[in-house]
Amino acid sequence: MDRDSLVSLRRDLHRHPEPAWCEFYTTARIAEACRRVGVDDLLVGPEVVDAESRMAVPDGDTLAEWQERAVEDGADAELVDRMAGGHTGAIATLERGDGPTVGLRVDIDALHITESESGDHHPASEGFRSEHEGYMHACGHDGHATIGVGVLEAVADSDFEGTLKVVFQPAEERVGGGKAIAESGHLDDVDYLYAVHLGLDHPSGEVVAGVDGFLAVSHLLAEFEGEPAHAGAHPEEGRNAVQAMATAIQNLYAIPRHDGGATRVNAGRAGGGTATNIVPEEAFVEGEVRGETTDLMHYMKRKAERVLHSAADMHECEVELSTEGEAPSAESDQALVDAFAAEAGGHPDVDSVVERDSLGGSEDATYLMQRVQQTGGLACYVCVGTDHPGGHHTSTFDVDEGSLWPAVDALSGAIRSVATDRP
Amino acid sequence: MDRDSLVSLRRDLHRHPEPAWCEFYTTARIAEACRRVGVDDLLVGPEVVDAESRMAVPDGDTLAEWQERAVEDGADAELVDRMAGGHTGAIATLERGDGPTVGLRVDIDALHITESESGDHHPASEGFRSEHEGYMHACGHDGHATIGVGVLEAVADSDFEGTLKVVFQPAEERVGGGKAIAESGHLDDVDYLYAVHLGLDHPSGEVVAGVDGFLAVSHLLAEFEGEPAHAGAHPEEGRNAVQAMATAIQNLYAIPRHDGGATRVNAGRAGGGTATNIVPEEAFVEGEVRGETTDLMHYMKRKAERVLHSAADMHECEVELSTEGEAPSAESDQALVDAFAAEAGGHPDVDSVVERDSLGGSEDATYLMQRVQQTGGLACYVCVGTDHPGGHHTSTFDVDEGSLWPAVDALSGAIRSVATDRP
Amino acid sequence: MDRDSLVSLRRDLHRHPEPAWCEFYTTARIAEACRRVGVDDLLVGPEVVDAESRMAVPDGDTLAEWQERAVEDGADAELVDRMAGGHTGAIATLERGDGPTVGLRVDIDALHITESESGDHHPASEGFRSEHEGYMHACGHDGHATIGVGVLEAVADSDFEGTLKVVFQPAEERVGGGKAIAESGHLDDVDYLYAVHLGLDHPSGEVVAGVDGFLAVSHLLAEFEGEPAHAGAHPEEGRNAVQAMATAIQNLYAIPRHDGGATRVNAGRAGGGTATNIVPEEAFVEGEVRGETTDLMHYMKRKAERVLHSAADMHECEVELSTEGEAPSAESDQALVDAFAAEAGGHPDVDSVVERDSLGGSEDATYLMQRVQQTGGLACYVCVGTDHPGGHHTSTFDVDEGSLWPAVDALSGAIRSVATDRP
Amino acid sequence: MDRDSLVSLRRDLHRHPEPAWCEFYTTARIAEACRRVGVDDLLVGPEVVDAESRMAVPDGDTLAEWQERAVEDGADAELVDRMAGGHTGAIATLERGDGPTVGLRVDIDALHITESESGDHHPASEGFRSEHEGYMHACGHDGHATIGVGVLEAVADSDFEGTLKVVFQPAEERVGGGKAIAESGHLDDVDYLYAVHLGLDHPSGEVVAGVDGFLAVSHLLAEFEGEPAHAGAHPEEGRNAVQAMATAIQNLYAIPRHDGGATRVNAGRAGGGTATNIVPEEAFVEGEVRGETTDLMHYMKRKAERVLHSAADMHECEVELSTEGEAPSAESDQALVDAFAAEAGGHPDVDSVVERDSLGGSEDATYLMQRVQQTGGLACYVCVGTDHPGGHHTSTFDVDEGSLWPAVDALSGAIRSVATDRP
Repeated sequence: MDRDSLVSLRRDLHRHPEPAWCEFYTTARIAEACRRVGVDDLLVGPEVVDAESRMAVPDGDTLAEWQERAVEDGADAELVDRMAGGHTGAIATLERGDGPTVGLRVDIDALHITESESGDHHPASEGFRSEHEGYMHACGHDGHATIGVGVLEAVADSDFEGTLKVVFQPAEERVGGGKAIAESGHLDDVDYLYAVHLGLDHPSGEVVAGVDGFLAVSHLLAEFEGEPAHAGAHPEEGRNAVQAMATAIQNLYAIPRHDGGATRVNAGRAGGGTATNIVPEEAFVEGEVRGETTDLMHYMKRKAERVLHSAADMHECEVELSTEGEAPSAESDQALVDAFAAEAGGHPDVDSVVERDSLGGSEDATYLMQRVQQTGGLACYVCVGTDHPGGHHTSTFDVDEGSLWPAVDALSGAIRSVATDRP
Repeated sequence: MDRDSLVSLRRDLHRHPEPAWCEFYTTARIAEACRRVGVDDLLVGPEVVDAESRMAVPDGDTLAEWQERAVEDGADAELVDRMAGGHTGAIATLERGDGPTVGLRVDIDALHITESESGDHHPASEGFRSEHEGYMHACGHDGHATIGVGVLEAVADSDFEGTLKVVFQPAEERVGGGKAIAESGHLDDVDYLYAVHLGLDHPSGEVVAGVDGFLAVSHLLAEFEGEPAHAGAHPEEGRNAVQAMATAIQNLYAIPRHDGGATRVNAGRAGGGTATNIVPEEAFVEGEVRGETTDLMHYMKRKAERVLHSAADMHECEVELSTEGEAPSAESDQALVDAFAAEAGGHPDVDSVVERDSLGGSEDATYLMQRVQQTGGLACYVCVGTDHPGGHHTSTFDVDEGSLWPAVDALSGAIRSVATDRP
Repeated sequence: MDRDSLVSLRRDLHRHPEPAWCEFYTTARIAEACRRVGVDDLLVGPEVVDAESRMAVPDGDTLAEWQERAVEDGADAELVDRMAGGHTGAIATLERGDGPTVGLRVDIDALHITESESGDHHPASEGFRSEHEGYMHACGHDGHATIGVGVLEAVADSDFEGTLKVVFQPAEERVGGGKAIAESGHLDDVDYLYAVHLGLDHPSGEVVAGVDGFLAVSHLLAEFEGEPAHAGAHPEEGRNAVQAMATAIQNLYAIPRHDGGATRVNAGRAGGGTATNIVPEEAFVEGEVRGETTDLMHYMKRKAERVLHSAADMHECEVELSTEGEAPSAESDQALVDAFAAEAGGHPDVDSVVERDSLGGSEDATYLMQRVQQTGGLACYVCVGTDHPGGHHTSTFDVDEGSLWPAVDALSGAIRSVATDRP
Repeated sequence: MDRDSLVSLRRDLHRHPEPAWCEFYTTARIAEACRRVGVDDLLVGPEVVDAESRMAVPDGDTLAEWQERAVEDGADAELVDRMAGGHTGAIATLERGDGPTVGLRVDIDALHITESESGDHHPASEGFRSEHEGYMHACGHDGHATIGVGVLEAVADSDFEGTLKVVFQPAEERVGGGKAIAESGHLDDVDYLYAVHLGLDHPSGEVVAGVDGFLAVSHLLAEFEGEPAHAGAHPEEGRNAVQAMATAIQNLYAIPRHDGGATRVNAGRAGGGTATNIVPEEAFVEGEVRGETTDLMHYMKRKAERVLHSAADMHECEVELSTEGEAPSAESDQALVDAFAAEAGGHPDVDSVVERDSLGGSEDATYLMQRVQQTGGLACYVCVGTDHPGGHHTSTFDVDEGSLWPAVDALSGAIRSVATDRP
């Protein structure tokens, strides 16, 4: 695949950003590109993930709208049809003899952000700004998907001996897709897994060979239901969901700190009630807990759930809790760090190799890394720097397309090297 | 005005429900009816109220939309134009010699409720269901306005000596219009003021000659503003508006009870935040306080404001408070109660006269009553029962049109009687 | 019993104030005075009350100390011995033929207040200031007990036909004794019951024939138990009783107001923890709820218990709840009000008879009134005014001894009158 | 000083434990021992500290009691007299020529803990259990003071060239004395400072050459004052200090976590109110905040102070805040770590040298370390392991007296070595 084709693919994806579990067009375009590369196996549809493990799946109407739009945008209707119900994402496999199985994970979803129309914003001036108003590839997943296709082609054209699986994962932004991929079992034979991210405040020319410091995270939604009443005439007849909500919020933030490491809690969205003179019947808290380790996150989650249940009980409300997204923490294995560092270090477009850096945020590639490590394999998360004018998740974010090649080259090089050296 | 005309007016108003300060069509139709009656003076537009005292006025776009719709619905464009900017409502005056000045207050606004389409619902089956989808006369103000016109006509046709002012007040549902009428000064020469409401759980054939027990009320809106931050990476950089909101809600409900009488508080609507992983920058509480007396309401309001300010301060947020509506408590004067009871008692369609009853809710006619009483006059709030299938403020509410006549007759009778007897 | 003897008894009791369930000396002195009067039956010891229904009984050491002190102060050791374990109080009965059974209830306990030593304070200047330092008859129960004895004697010396039971009730100040008397069954044959209080801000010469407006009350003690931990080294290992306490307090005050009438809540005492650097293992809230009716009090109590349980649960603590005192609301029956008003009105020392007044506080005579009313009898609570220099429950409270006679006379007169008239 | 004398001194101090700023006997005994060693300068009394910087000083009565007891226990009355008002502690100086100034800090106060009487508890079985019932040397400061004297003697008897200052610091347990020593200026000429602690869960034979990981700490006392009121009759007249307290506690625990490192908060003691039926007039919170760095502690302290002020303001209470103790974080300098490790490593009673370990708690030697480092010197905190049957701050804590010699030897060796090598 030449550079023009890669840039063209990336820009096509950029023009058609789709949110979590709605990546119908994106998956269809990726599938076509994989077929053109000549993969040996291509999974699309329900078999890609463990459907029950998907989190943060939108409602049926939303899914149907995006599905329809994908076809209108020109996606292959038959392919899109196989993804009905939010079964997006793909796994492409190359089989090249008896060597080990190597995996690469890239994510493909976009964000609910309106893209800048400024003349300074490259996608706007070059004509590939988002055509899905209000949605945007503001975290570089268009680039990640493109890298996934590029690596497939580069490895296909090489003397690689073994099996390569490239996972195009949906719903990373909601930490909703990682677990469903991990639970599918498709990674259980993977010996070495890489995951890759562009940017992360590293400039073009710099790579990080091993990213660590993922905070394990869980997104919680609590929906309180009480009983309405006229606040003037019969306040005692109400069961006040907003009081339950407020009590919960106060106590969520007050979960004791933990000696074992960093923890976080946030009631990021909350609300309830319908009118000033009605005792509120319904309220919700949508929040998250994090921990420096998966155990610390579970400590916070267990405490949070108790707070939410007790606050509901105190105000005679019902509460329904759901996990809207989740990801564990993870560590990159040194052997894969070394292999990537060696390949990247020799690349003409790379002038600085950082051995290890800390993410300080959350990401659900960790589910895949954990799965591989638990089944005896090694895993590593790498970052390829890219000059990005705006920050991640802002309307002026963009990637330097020149950073796609070192990403493709260093990853395909590392994949071939670990297949040979079996570290 | 014959019965058919009154019913026809009521149904026209019912088909065109308009919310607070958007009663453009309603006012225009009332004005036309008043002209037809032949009033001596008719105020429409900015001079009706003290503009600064209006509360809960919608934003300019909303006002403009309703203004435009009124003209589309057939209202007199010139009249509507005079009401631009939410200057709805009207005051119609009859001058008939040297007697005292008597006032009658009716309210004219509708609610943000979708009207029932059921075949059992009389307006639906008879073809005068709301044409403004999502809005509805669910509290009988269409009937009140009609009674106002009916009383004007009945008094005009009588031997009444004195002055009659009928106030068609906007924005009662938000307790936003009463103060603006009171502060206009138009009631300062009124010796005797009646206000009237249909229904209130009293059946057709029953009237209440003196309604009391109005809870004074104030609607408060608190808007908190903090500082967003990434909840995982830099929680300490945020100033958390949702924490301020939760602290405020907990302490609002905990304002000490008062020995002087009943008090109420409700955080009826609250919310904030944008995403699970962002420390919330904005939040709000929209609530109300009430008191058995105006002083008790002010006690609650003063405490509530302190709670809201301190909660903001605690979490380093700004808070902006606004009063979205307000009404004092009031008592009906016995002389007017007696006069109405006498007239109603003799009416063929009335079989039960309750001398006094308690409202147990709030209503801003109290501002007008208070104004008249403070300037030496007498005031009285009466209720004319009506069989209403659904409760007030529900989608199946309707008035028994047969109750309009006893209302018109008893009110016009009482007005003539107090003008003569000068109690 | 002449006036000097009554004054002498009152001053003796005043010098020996004893708190709830520790009225050993007081009961012994009352018993002696009753014997001198020549009562037909005198209950002292465990049979006076239903022992299980006693509330707020002190621990055994405290009881033993007061018991010992009573003997040291000169009380009859054998009598005191019968009261061991806090079985104080007495019921004296006169049987005089076939008439109805009339009851009189007086209370006998003192307060944990240090009596004034000022020369302006009559008991101090006259030499009958409290000899139990830190305790004081600051609510006139020394006078009430004396009135009880005085009434016994006056009725004994009269032509009364029927049965008179005078109940000398312990532990009113903790609302801990009323239920135990009521549950004893000794009032089940009482046809007419009076209870009496001196003062209540009414001056000498004024009486209130029917006191109402008792707020029903319940005293609650909640004891939280969690788990300690080093707050610096292992905060997560604690289960924080002070967090449970704070959450409970915030939500206790926020129990919704009730449309049915006045309610109250107070977390009057609270505390917990041992050191700044230890996660608090223990905490408590001692508070009360009240209601204008017994039902309203129970509404508040039910809500409060839920708050306390849920707050404990939220912070993984245990909580033990106990009712430390309780009293219902009550109303005075008109026939007894009339009888007392008639007697008092004719008394030379009474210049003003208020028919009805509201207490606005709580008192557990209501248990006795309720019991009599439930078994078909009538009950009435009267107040005999007395000039009291300091307020009730302050160190300079005192009663005007001149008000003892109108109390004795009007009560004994009313008792004889209802026995005759059987209203 | 021979081993018997050291053991004898340690046991004498153990028998006479004294809390913060009450170390009258202890200081007197230390002063005598220092004189016997033959120090060149000995500071006792007000000149030892900066009096204004003392924190957690008890009230005058408490100080006077302990002062009196010290004399009764046999302390030199003249010496004790110089310490009146809580001016305990001492600084002993050896001047031995032109070398650098080396400092050693030991702490001398005891805890409010009742010592075990068990036969298994060595001080009990050997007859040197605490004679100050309820107080105990449960953290080894009796040993620390003894080591200070031992080092003075060992250095005095050596070829050391330079100046040695041994600081016997009061009030470490309340983190109340460190700042007062630091602010005195006596350390401003110190080039090298050691501080020493026994035990810390390290067994006899093990030493830690550089202790780090001190959590900076601040102890806060907040005293709320409102207005009492009768909770039944006039709840609205109160200003409720317990509500302020509860709001503060809830929000203290909810101070946002910090990305920069570990933080802690604890409301270790709290309470208020006097009676169930009185709106509480007074309440307090005594708590602490900690941070992995001094900046993080100050972040928490600033937030805590704002919470406390706003909570008071919300409930119309006054609040008075005071800092009851404080200590920064600190790091041990490598050169001093190396010097101590070298000396300890060669000692026959030491079989394991841990180069660095983390304390995980707080200690105010950090004030002294910080002062020396800020004036250009080096500082190091060392730990000498000792088998301690019970944990620190428990009733069965004891030190293995055999660990006193390696402590004295290694410290005096390191002092001589840094004086010579001037690292």
